Amino acid sequence: MVIIVESGADRQTVDNLVAKVSSLGFTPHPIYGVEKTVIAVVGEKTQEKIDILEMMPGVQQIIPILKPYKLVGREVRTEQSVIPLGEGLAIGGERFVVMAGPCAVESYDQLSEIARYVKSSGAQVLRGGIFKPRTSPHDFQGLREEGIPIAMAVKAEVGLPFITEVVDIRDIEVLHDVADVYQVGARNMQNFALLTELGKVDRPVMLKRGMSATVEDLLQAAEYVAVEGNANVILCERGIRTFENFTRNTLDISAVPALKRRSHLPVVVDPSHACGIAWMVEPLALAAVAAGADGLMIEVHNDPPKALSDGAQSLTPDQFDHTAARVWAAARAFGRRVS
Amino acid sequence: MVIIVESGADRQTVDNLVAKVSSLGFTPHPIYGVEKTVIAVVGEKTQEKIDILEMMPGVQQIIPILKPYKLVGREVRTEQSVIPLGEGLAIGGERFVVMAGPCAVESYDQLSEIARYVKSSGAQVLRGGIFKPRTSPHDFQGLREEGIPIAMAVKAEVGLPFITEVVDIRDIEVLHDVADVYQVGARNMQNFALLTELGKVDRPVMLKRGMSATVEDLLQAAEYVAVEGNANVILCERGIRTFENFTRNTLDISAVPALKRRSHLPVVVDPSHACGIAWMVEPLALAAVAAGADGLMIEVHNDPPKALSDGAQSLTPDQFDHTAARVWAAARAFGRRVS
Amino acid sequence: MVIIVESGADRQTVDNLVAKVSSLGFTPHPIYGVEKTVIAVVGEKTQEKIDILEMMPGVQQIIPILKPYKLVGREVRTEQSVIPLGEGLAIGGERFVVMAGPCAVESYDQLSEIARYVKSSGAQVLRGGIFKPRTSPHDFQGLREEGIPIAMAVKAEVGLPFITEVVDIRDIEVLHDVADVYQVGARNMQNFALLTELGKVDRPVMLKRGMSATVEDLLQAAEYVAVEGNANVILCERGIRTFENFTRNTLDISAVPALKRRSHLPVVVDPSHACGIAWMVEPLALAAVAAGADGLMIEVHNDPPKALSDGAQSLTPDQFDHTAARVWAAARAFGRRVS
Amino acid sequence: MVIIVESGADRQTVDNLVAKVSSLGFTPHPIYGVEKTVIAVVGEKTQEKIDILEMMPGVQQIIPILKPYKLVGREVRTEQSVIPLGEGLAIGGERFVVMAGPCAVESYDQLSEIARYVKSSGAQVLRGGIFKPRTSPHDFQGLREEGIPIAMAVKAEVGLPFITEVVDIRDIEVLHDVADVYQVGARNMQNFALLTELGKVDRPVMLKRGMSATVEDLLQAAEYVAVEGNANVILCERGIRTFENFTRNTLDISAVPALKRRSHLPVVVDPSHACGIAWMVEPLALAAVAAGADGLMIEVHNDPPKALSDGAQSLTPDQFDHTAARVWAAARAFGRRVS
Repeated sequence: MVIIVESGADRQTVDNLVAKVSSLGFTPHPIYGVEKTVIAVVGEKTQEKIDILEMMPGVQQIIPILKPYKLVGREVRTEQSVIPLGEGLAIGGERFVVMAGPCAVESYDQLSEIARYVKSSGAQVLRGGIFKPRTSPHDFQGLREEGIPIAMAVKAEVGLPFITEVVDIRDIEVLHDVADVYQVGARNMQNFALLTELGKVDRPVMLKRGMSATVEDLLQAAEYVAVEGNANVILCERGIRTFENFTRNTLDISAVPALKRRSHLPVVVDPSHACGIAWMVEPLALAAVAAGADGLMIEVHNDPPKALSDGAQSLTPDQFDHTAARVWAAARAFGRRVS
Repeated sequence: MVIIVESGADRQTVDNLVAKVSSLGFTPHPIYGVEKTVIAVVGEKTQEKIDILEMMPGVQQIIPILKPYKLVGREVRTEQSVIPLGEGLAIGGERFVVMAGPCAVESYDQLSEIARYVKSSGAQVLRGGIFKPRTSPHDFQGLREEGIPIAMAVKAEVGLPFITEVVDIRDIEVLHDVADVYQVGARNMQNFALLTELGKVDRPVMLKRGMSATVEDLLQAAEYVAVEGNANVILCERGIRTFENFTRNTLDISAVPALKRRSHLPVVVDPSHACGIAWMVEPLALAAVAAGADGLMIEVHNDPPKALSDGAQSLTPDQFDHTAARVWAAARAFGRRVS
Repeated sequence: MVIIVESGADRQTVDNLVAKVSSLGFTPHPIYGVEKTVIAVVGEKTQEKIDILEMMPGVQQIIPILKPYKLVGREVRTEQSVIPLGEGLAIGGERFVVMAGPCAVESYDQLSEIARYVKSSGAQVLRGGIFKPRTSPHDFQGLREEGIPIAMAVKAEVGLPFITEVVDIRDIEVLHDVADVYQVGARNMQNFALLTELGKVDRPVMLKRGMSATVEDLLQAAEYVAVEGNANVILCERGIRTFENFTRNTLDISAVPALKRRSHLPVVVDPSHACGIAWMVEPLALAAVAAGADGLMIEVHNDPPKALSDGAQSLTPDQFDHTAARVWAAARAFGRRVS
Repeated sequence: MVIIVESGADRQTVDNLVAKVSSLGFTPHPIYGVEKTVIAVVGEKTQEKIDILEMMPGVQQIIPILKPYKLVGREVRTEQSVIPLGEGLAIGGERFVVMAGPCAVESYDQLSEIARYVKSSGAQVLRGGIFKPRTSPHDFQGLREEGIPIAMAVKAEVGLPFITEVVDIRDIEVLHDVADVYQVGARNMQNFALLTELGKVDRPVMLKRGMSATVEDLLQAAEYVAVEGNANVILCERGIRTFENFTRNTLDISAVPALKRRSHLPVVVDPSHACGIAWMVEPLALAAVAAGADGLMIEVHNDPPKALSDGAQSLTPDQFDHTAARVWAAARAFGRRVS
């Protein structure tokens, strides 16, 4: 870290700071400039020690130097992670992966019909919410336990791996057989208790970026899973909260190259939740391919007027087929392998 | 809700929309304007029905009309909620309440010393983290179970109610005896599984606003607790995430009058986490009193250079004593009862 | 507009509101719902009349219905605008346009060298700042008047149209001969005096989105230029200000499809200013092509270590050549004509 | 500044960086840490030199050290600026200043009536827009030249100094006699051409913070005025743009102590524009007093239903009288002199 000393601090103040830095086990390097004095600090930091120094008289600012993520960063592991998703599929390599399906599992007929549709358009993973977190407690919360056998049956029929959201530690086990990939939603990105438990399971975890989480926060959250032993984490950009309200959230397309550069984990983009507008899903999906994402997650509904949640952003199977065709063409143009 | 029809939609499109509205059980009132046609829709809405309509051809936008919160809103209950905190204290009435203490419980000596200090400066509730959620898994996570007997002993000695954060459903029971008030942190504001369980306990819950949560989102989250039977919810403004980085977060002081107007629940402000800078806690605390808050939560540490977390924003006992004196004077000037 | 009446307002209050609406020359349509009463209002609105109604007792909220932009909106003109840029080039049609050049014009040698480089890589428009707006008055403000003959000479040599920023009404005339396109920077997007004057010139204007401007604000600003008679406005997305600080700004890629849907004006993306990081320019440029932009503006410098402004985000000619080649390939793959 | 070297950069890369730093006229201090190498750089920086270094191979990040503002910062001038406003009034000292009046000057009768009202409630400065910048060109733009004699007459009658917005360099002279204080609106905060010209006039300038401007940006903009010789700059917080839409903008109350600490200039808060809701003006005004502001600017209208702009946020004279009385009481309680 680097300590910026307040303008006008006298020599005694600086000496006290230097002594405190030493007493905490660091090696201080004070540099006396024309306008400002700074103290560069070398050694293994902890947040606690930084906080102690921040309170010392004469400290204007402490600038943490972004340290390598111990597990999810490129510094430690330069080669790209390729994560198996089941059924012979993997994400993070040359192959571009499309996950598609309804927001929520509503019935066997619904899921089965959509699953067949999206598979025929080339989707390789089926998505569907069984437990749904909703802003209001008075809204539909998913089929819950009743949805599990439905999803089990459908994924067996179509032979696609299934990804579904887990919102409660107690559901991790309940969902274990049906979930080929556990999804952590944006609202739970910093539910560290949940992340810690998911670090102990033998399934990949797709971690969606929180609405106000920085790229740095998302990587730290991924570190929570990895530190428990589960290195199979997929990062998902799904829009951040800004002042712009044309779209539901603002897709931070820069997060794709940023995450890919800082981390070896695969990056997926969810254009459906990012914009919340069906007609805008396609251009954003194409932008994600162009920016270097490893995959997409897209909401599809067979009978939009009957969708029990998030209908506005779902594509019909025909719309999805159109979008998927353009996505595959783009992925090919950008050098990805298209199965 | 009000449906805005796209410019240029023909009569058939509007008629189809009107028919769909009726078929969903609503009463449609189409209004044909010069530039635009709108359809006002009367009846009991659900998010699902809104989503269905959003997908119909010809719909430009659906404007939801903010509906009364069933439990936490002023529409249903106009008188202010006064919530007992234990030890004869209550929040939401005339009395202004100051909660103070360390970020984290570190030892018996530390908590005991701070508790006596803050009580002598007039604080009526002791705070202290036992389980700490931290952005990085490599940072200090609190004393955890070991912290409980320490807090039990100290709160008995000083006779102050104790508030502490719960981050995991499984800890609700563990913390039951020590927590006079359960705190839900900003990162868990939309951890609906946790909120639902806290709706079943016999303790007040202080719910901190998420970093990207709107006033509306916070009230909906409070509704999650209330709907399970626990009406004793305290709302806490602690700063939102914006582009400004002078402060750690941006204290949304407007949220105080906004929450007080929309809801009957008490509102507390946490200036320490909002700004993250010790010298700024006092002016923000005073602003909170002036804006009509019912209480404050302030971090205090007996020996800042040894604090194990969030030191930079903690006040020393002397600083806290100064701030508290000004807070009590301000509270009195603004007509609050000061115990 | 739609007036939402406060819950619990009595009949007299609603009647007064309806009367006021009529007295302002509108036709009111009150709708009495179960939970809420709303009044739909038909007629030609002005902001003033809306403000008057907002102050009436019983009004909870007034929801403006987005009205068609009189000049720049799709409602009035459905076909895409194709704007001539000089030298036989036009933007907004099938052809994809790349504008490139240094942040600031520094010398004849510098501009001439870069101009030849970028032209050889396929750029069709040369950019270069002559008057530079800078956050601090102590920073380099451009060559100012001295830069004009340099740019005149270079654009004549290479035969590329030249785009440059105008920051002061008094410079519009000064820059008239050298500027084939006037650029309005993000900081001046709502400098309405400047926009009004640019509405009277015979040159296209490229209007960059302000850092906190919504898509709606940008279109309203374009309307300021158009209303004075200059319909040749090009919109430019260059990043908005959010909490994320990995990048200098956050490129709002959704603004591309949003602007294209609401307006017939061409849309350009400036990835250099959006991210402020040289290595991120390429993936963002490709994303812009994929999302449907009509062109790009990219900063290039011949000798980065000597650049007098914004060096960090400039590409070297070699980097630009690489990026341009990928942009042309992508543009072709997405069906654009590549000259 | 401090240069953070990329993890894994070899010794040659670091040596090249050190050499480049020297060649630019700085003194480099490389520090070789366990995880990271950093180079502290001492000497007089320019943005240009920083940009050059940012492009060097091996540079991960350059951290600028906030340098003292040459003119508006506390480093250079520790005592608080007290700025005369005319009619024997000054701002920045012990006395708390309230500026009030209509959004726009509409007629002699309107301005005269409001002026007498607000004076009787204790306001010491009259505000009123003559030239109005509006988001849409189709909205009312103020009385323009016709408003000047009206304001001249009224300010003479009531004996209050008058503050009005200037939106165009060409109007500075036109407004010179009527404006005791020039106001620069949020949209023009970075209209550097306007700021530069205002630096040459013999009138105080009140500079409103831009909607997406940081505290740092605002101080840099003030520096633009001061550098030309006009040291009489008043800073005004009026809300920033965030995701929260309960209020029109989000009042950044922390900006008050932040600006007061970094700068010797007086700080005014405009609660009317910050929230855009008449009933919320009072609590925010009180919060501003408590947070240490030197003054307030509040919109008042004599006949709200007839107001031609921004009616929703204006107080009636009675409401203003109530708010002013509470403001004076609060100012007194917080130790300010109340005339």
